[in-house]
Amino acid sequence: MTDLALAIDLGGTNIRAGLIDPSGTIVTQAETRTRAMDGPIVVLDQIAALAAQVLQGTEVKGVGMCSPGPIDTLKGQTFFIQTLAGFEGFPLRQALSDRLHLPVQVENDGISGAVAELCFGAGRAYQDFVYATISTGIGGGIVVDGRPLRGRRGMAGHIGHMAFHRDWPRHKGGKLPAFEDYGAGPALTARAMALAAKTPTSPLHSEILDARAVYRAAAQGDHLAQSLVHDEAELLGMGFASLAHILSPQAIILGGGMAQAWDQLQPTLQASLDAHLKPGFEGIPILRAELGTTSSLIGAAALIFRPELASSHP
Amino acid sequence: MTDLALAIDLGGTNIRAGLIDPSGTIVTQAETRTRAMDGPIVVLDQIAALAAQVLQGTEVKGVGMCSPGPIDTLKGQTFFIQTLAGFEGFPLRQALSDRLHLPVQVENDGISGAVAELCFGAGRAYQDFVYATISTGIGGGIVVDGRPLRGRRGMAGHIGHMAFHRDWPRHKGGKLPAFEDYGAGPALTARAMALAAKTPTSPLHSEILDARAVYRAAAQGDHLAQSLVHDEAELLGMGFASLAHILSPQAIILGGGMAQAWDQLQPTLQASLDAHLKPGFEGIPILRAELGTTSSLIGAAALIFRPELASSHP
Repeated sequence: MTDLALAIDLGGTNIRAGLIDPSGTIVTQAETRTRAMDGPIVVLDQIAALAAQVLQGTEVKGVGMCSPGPIDTLKGQTFFIQTLAGFEGFPLRQALSDRLHLPVQVENDGISGAVAELCFGAGRAYQDFVYATISTGIGGGIVVDGRPLRGRRGMAGHIGHMAFHRDWPRHKGGKLPAFEDYGAGPALTARAMALAAKTPTSPLHSEILDARAVYRAAAQGDHLAQSLVHDEAELLGMGFASLAHILSPQAIILGGGMAQAWDQLQPTLQASLDAHLKPGFEGIPILRAELGTTSSLIGAAALIFRPELASSHP
Repeated sequence: MTDLALAIDLGGTNIRAGLIDPSGTIVTQAETRTRAMDGPIVVLDQIAALAAQVLQGTEVKGVGMCSPGPIDTLKGQTFFIQTLAGFEGFPLRQALSDRLHLPVQVENDGISGAVAELCFGAGRAYQDFVYATISTGIGGGIVVDGRPLRGRRGMAGHIGHMAFHRDWPRHKGGKLPAFEDYGAGPALTARAMALAAKTPTSPLHSEILDARAVYRAAAQGDHLAQSLVHDEAELLGMGFASLAHILSPQAIILGGGMAQAWDQLQPTLQASLDAHLKPGFEGIPILRAELGTTSSLIGAAALIFRPELASSHP
């Protein structure tokens, strides 16, 4: 047997598989488009094919898999995956273990990303931190006393569902607007489209907009785009302040697609967090995730190398 | 030496001292009005006098003290206590230990309350729960894997500062409205006064209002008061839903003055939480704190009986 772990990152768009060594380095990897509408059996076939491709007969210590939550990682069972059809109440760990004939750990992808940063990234220096991943949604993982906070069913860290709104009586019965409804990529894009439509002079006016386009225009000096980036950073900082008061972390680590605009976001993001912290809570740095878009994949492997960080020991 | 611990609950209104036995029972207690504006030396004199009164020469295992936060419980130092003058950067643990010639543990009162419920109350059956205390503010303590979550400086659990609001751009630069600004007693009173002023037929119209008066009128069948209680319960349930997604607790325990209206709040409170939970998070019970207004005092003593739950070991 080698020292390597097989890691699988199951997403609504892509499935990624990697062979990862104990230092967190990806030795080899492969990716395929998820057949998201075809149900778990087809998706397991895809995972098995991808695993065979990266393994090429290599024997590994174990398999770590992450997926969009919520997963009950004590039972190894999904509840419902928004981006994948047919995963309601699916016994993911057992099904994958049966297919690969290997022990499998499953993990919520936010926690997986946090574990990666704890073992190999920006969280190495800390015992208590929040990892926030901002992309098409907002997810996360919380580390307390050097261990991931899991809670009931292993599902803690769904920080994107943190919600609170001023006008609550007016919205009674409606969906409660959540952190991710304001802070994630699609919200930034929606604000950009609304503003650009009203501003014919903006270079954003005639563009097909996404978050990337906003950051690009801001970098090129467009004031409208710059104000959108400023607002985005302020908003994220406000959400982080709530988390800081609840959890008192030593640091907050920003990952996900939004972290690619780190240099543009960082000054206002940190200032916004600082401005909303109560006495005693000051001085919490926001750091950029070091493992980028592969953090969840690497974290899934870390659960094999450091089983004391895993939620279950099959 | 006896088996007893001396507990001190320092509040902005009252200071309470108690001799507490290892089962969490208060053997004897005394209380005095806090000289809140006279600074820490005078307050320490008050504490010492109160301690002498309950001790009557009894030798105790140690002293546990709680106070409104935030306290850096690793250093034993306050940052700023809103309701007490002169406590900025005060070395509370050392000063009290010097005064009483005994080892002292200091704790944020929300965490202290959570520890009490964990050891002796509604949290005994759980490893992971949130304790929320709703009175003139909202505080709390979080228990993870059977231990209080402390975080940096031991200040986690300030759930009342959780903030998020829909209209954030309109409030840019302003104070971010927080959970306690909507959910605590004064907010309920303010809503009641605004509504009662417009409703001459309500029995609340001519009353000097506080939260108690609202609950009393609701119990007597007043529709306006009942709608206020309903709103309060909904609002608290929304805040609890945010905490549930972040922490995935097995239970949420409601304490503080607001818990005195438990029977009136409970059905809507639980329904509101349930309505705002994502798939997989369902089924988190809200329980009434069992130790009432003495929970923080008892929790401070529990830190002496179970030093493994304390943040520092002097």
